[in-house]
Amino acid sequence: MGKFLRVNTKEKTFGFEEVPQAYAGLGGRALTSKMILDEVPATCHALGKANKLIFAPGILSGSPAADSGRLSAGAKSPLTGGIKESNAGGLVSQKLAKLGITAIVLEDKPETDEYSIIVINNDGVKILPAGDLVGKGNYSVMESLRDKYGKTIGILSIGQAGEQRLKGASIQQADMNGRPGRAHGRGGLGAVMATKKIKAIVVDDKGAPRVEVKDSEAFKAANKRWVEMLRSHPVSGEGLPAFGTAVLVNVINEAGTFPTKNFRSGRFEHAKDISGEKIAELTEQRGGITTEPCHPGCVIKCSNVYHDKDGKYLTSGFEYETIWAFGAHTTIKDIDAIAMLDRLCDDFGLDTIEMGVTLGIAMEGGMIPWGDGKAAIDLLSKVGDYTPEGKIIGNGALFTGDALGVDRVPVVKKQALPAYDPRSCKGVGVTYATTPMGADHTAGYGVTANILGVGGTIDPTKKEGNIELSQGLQVATAAIDAAGLCLFVAFAVIDNEDGLPTIAKMINAQHGLSLTPDDLLEIGKSILNNEMEFNRKAGFTKVDDQLPEMFNETFPPHNTQWDFSIEELSKTLKF
Amino acid sequence: MGKFLRVNTKEKTFGFEEVPQAYAGLGGRALTSKMILDEVPATCHALGKANKLIFAPGILSGSPAADSGRLSAGAKSPLTGGIKESNAGGLVSQKLAKLGITAIVLEDKPETDEYSIIVINNDGVKILPAGDLVGKGNYSVMESLRDKYGKTIGILSIGQAGEQRLKGASIQQADMNGRPGRAHGRGGLGAVMATKKIKAIVVDDKGAPRVEVKDSEAFKAANKRWVEMLRSHPVSGEGLPAFGTAVLVNVINEAGTFPTKNFRSGRFEHAKDISGEKIAELTEQRGGITTEPCHPGCVIKCSNVYHDKDGKYLTSGFEYETIWAFGAHTTIKDIDAIAMLDRLCDDFGLDTIEMGVTLGIAMEGGMIPWGDGKAAIDLLSKVGDYTPEGKIIGNGALFTGDALGVDRVPVVKKQALPAYDPRSCKGVGVTYATTPMGADHTAGYGVTANILGVGGTIDPTKKEGNIELSQGLQVATAAIDAAGLCLFVAFAVIDNEDGLPTIAKMINAQHGLSLTPDDLLEIGKSILNNEMEFNRKAGFTKVDDQLPEMFNETFPPHNTQWDFSIEELSKTLKF
Repeated sequence: MGKFLRVNTKEKTFGFEEVPQAYAGLGGRALTSKMILDEVPATCHALGKANKLIFAPGILSGSPAADSGRLSAGAKSPLTGGIKESNAGGLVSQKLAKLGITAIVLEDKPETDEYSIIVINNDGVKILPAGDLVGKGNYSVMESLRDKYGKTIGILSIGQAGEQRLKGASIQQADMNGRPGRAHGRGGLGAVMATKKIKAIVVDDKGAPRVEVKDSEAFKAANKRWVEMLRSHPVSGEGLPAFGTAVLVNVINEAGTFPTKNFRSGRFEHAKDISGEKIAELTEQRGGITTEPCHPGCVIKCSNVYHDKDGKYLTSGFEYETIWAFGAHTTIKDIDAIAMLDRLCDDFGLDTIEMGVTLGIAMEGGMIPWGDGKAAIDLLSKVGDYTPEGKIIGNGALFTGDALGVDRVPVVKKQALPAYDPRSCKGVGVTYATTPMGADHTAGYGVTANILGVGGTIDPTKKEGNIELSQGLQVATAAIDAAGLCLFVAFAVIDNEDGLPTIAKMINAQHGLSLTPDDLLEIGKSILNNEMEFNRKAGFTKVDDQLPEMFNETFPPHNTQWDFSIEELSKTLKF
Repeated sequence: MGKFLRVNTKEKTFGFEEVPQAYAGLGGRALTSKMILDEVPATCHALGKANKLIFAPGILSGSPAADSGRLSAGAKSPLTGGIKESNAGGLVSQKLAKLGITAIVLEDKPETDEYSIIVINNDGVKILPAGDLVGKGNYSVMESLRDKYGKTIGILSIGQAGEQRLKGASIQQADMNGRPGRAHGRGGLGAVMATKKIKAIVVDDKGAPRVEVKDSEAFKAANKRWVEMLRSHPVSGEGLPAFGTAVLVNVINEAGTFPTKNFRSGRFEHAKDISGEKIAELTEQRGGITTEPCHPGCVIKCSNVYHDKDGKYLTSGFEYETIWAFGAHTTIKDIDAIAMLDRLCDDFGLDTIEMGVTLGIAMEGGMIPWGDGKAAIDLLSKVGDYTPEGKIIGNGALFTGDALGVDRVPVVKKQALPAYDPRSCKGVGVTYATTPMGADHTAGYGVTANILGVGGTIDPTKKEGNIELSQGLQVATAAIDAAGLCLFVAFAVIDNEDGLPTIAKMINAQHGLSLTPDDLLEIGKSILNNEMEFNRKAGFTKVDDQLPEMFNETFPPHNTQWDFSIEELSKTLKF
């Protein structure tokens, strides 16, 4: 059993605490969401001293289980005003697990403006002045920290967006190459970290023992089957390794649910110019990497490194949703401009989905022209200049819409909708509306049965079956997030009868437990119930569980409509 | 019985409609709130085509009843997201009543950017191009319209803030001198008018008959008693006529509940420099007017005209809450700077309470220095320049706090708290928390029994009696707003046993009805129930009926605390 590391950021003190019985066996999202519910007053100001920022590895993290290195970050969200769990790859999750740290809990907030960094290693914990890291972007911060603490450290850091406490601010994680290519992107958690005046957290597991596995033979057997399963599935074994998540550009565009020009239609005429296939072709010409893991032990390797026209490094972790947001949504067709926007977000520490949608809203409001990549880069750059324009943009789509008086803003619970139109991909639409997270495709990825034919086929344009689809996926996803597994294992889990049982076997072997697959689903339900309870206490009602008015418009090319009532949607997460 | 004037702002057409039976006998807030509940989908975007902007005279408006010339404006509020009724003096209410118009309903919204004006007179209605009024401030707009349509017209107009669809945007009314000294200030209704692309509404009652009074003898008798009552009360008969509402600066400061430096203490060391007495002294020296009615037939005459150092006109309708907001709240002690800020708000069309609180938040966030009048004027001026800073400020206190990452923002339902601290004036505090309007002193002015000894005495620093005080006042106020009476009649109504009966007599005599005083209170309750129903449908819960976290701080000099639970507060408006 590990320990909680509690840091009082006001006093700059810390302490370790045995994990209380009530939290035993919880990891990742199960732990962050329960702790936020128990310890953070739901009506507090998200930027106030009563909020807490919690990082928790999954229960499989640190073990040799493939794709188990995801870290959950939890807090009350400055963006949504509700509970938030945002998870990312990178090195921190596995290293914390190896150091026996079940959660880092950042509490209270300093009254002065002096930033600190937290350095955690096998010798203990140090809270040190951030010095000249303050004001720097994540690329520079991570480079400095790796120069000082070694090339194998895990890093969590915030950039200029976080320092300005913007609602779009992310917490970036160093990727396998030490660059800020991985993000706890959604919900503005970088702003919460900034209120605690923590610029970065360095995690170094040098000298730490391996994570204990109670039944190592059983574990090995289960993990072997696990790896086979992931490698043999067409999505996690072929599509994602070949083209990364950007493989979806052509797929979703072809399906007619690729939201274009602020959700006005489902096909973007320049889709192929910004597709995964195009990126692979450019990488072939310019150098770069198409098949890169986001953490050690990943067998899917959907990440990438993208080079510019001169063959120089430009960005990494260049994802489908990012490309959609800066591309089809804004009608920018220049993939290099889109890559530069991704890089700026990683550097300033901004959520790429929120920022892409925001730039579309800036276009809707006449601040910059539609499809103008250069103007978009100039505008987003202002976040790094601490200007009023930057503060508007960095606070996200709804804020920018409000600043400009735009009434056509695609958000649920104030969070921007991602890259699948809810009217022609209704399984995801139900998730957008009902997840406690605000519009979030990763909370219940209905694209599976709607478009990809994974786990059967459910018509994406009709209501039938899509509430049930979203419910099942939201429950399973919460369980996967608790385990610290990457969401992309879900394709294989859904299509293999022994998917969930294999996860249960790995957990049981590692921790000496006897969980059934049903127990895992119960964990998923309990996570969602905790999150909904927090949101209820924060003032959310079923009125918040729906899409905004703009989705009453008929959506081409399938001419679909959003036709779920509040009452129908309110059944989605009733267990 | 009058008629509804419905204007389709998209088609630029209009029509008159008999008042349906369900709305018979309703005026002012009773009418606007019921129509908004019945006709506007609660979850619509406030700036979208489904919202409506409704203007309604009170049921006594247009009659000779003293102080009955207030006009209600209603809509879904872009600021609070809930229902809004914002009422103001000026000439429009009485003129509409004389023209037989019970309500103006602005519907739908144009798809182009061309602004119109609506001209209403005894010959009919015209919808005309706004021409070069677009982009102009209210001073200029009103001057142009009076030059064209005559000096006796009533005017409703929006300035640059409304045109930018900012959440702090007001609708200004021309005062007795044709200046924009009267405001439908709260809740951002100017932004709604802008979405309808209506720059101004001109109302001219030349040639219209008098308002019919069914029993003119009974009316005269009741009105005679009414005038006596208003003139003999120390507040409406002496304090307000002598110094205007600014008489409260010294009173509230002395009582220790004058919120200073963003609600950090209840006494402002420079209070006397910004007091009503000081203004009277300066008016004596410089010229100006201390005793001015906001509409014909007012016997209280609390308004004023304020001159600058050179004896030239600077501003008018210079109210206590405005002086507090730009003064003690921001610690600006220069009354001329405060007057200039008031003038800018009237010209751009901005709510002075919201803007004063906002400038304090800009100081809290380090955008400008505390107490710096010049910097405050420069910053507020940017609203007129259509700059990003202006868009931040013009969107109000919460928006500015969010832009700057400030967690100490005094708002309820996103609307800024006015000029009485809720911890040392708890009767008003309960109103701030529970009124469907968002923090609003005029919704239930507990200062009466808390500080002024009107209607008995209830300790402002203790809980006892203050929920009941707020409840009684909220109900009575809603009834007064329905009648079109000025809120300042309430002092006399509370302190005279025949106060409410006299109002009933006037209404009965005018309309041939037989309402009892209890019937008036039932109208008040029904207004509040309608408003709460709209808000519930918009997603509000009892969580929204409370003060923000910052009011957990102990408040000097009385070292009081805000100690009402959500459960206690939720009883306030249960009838």
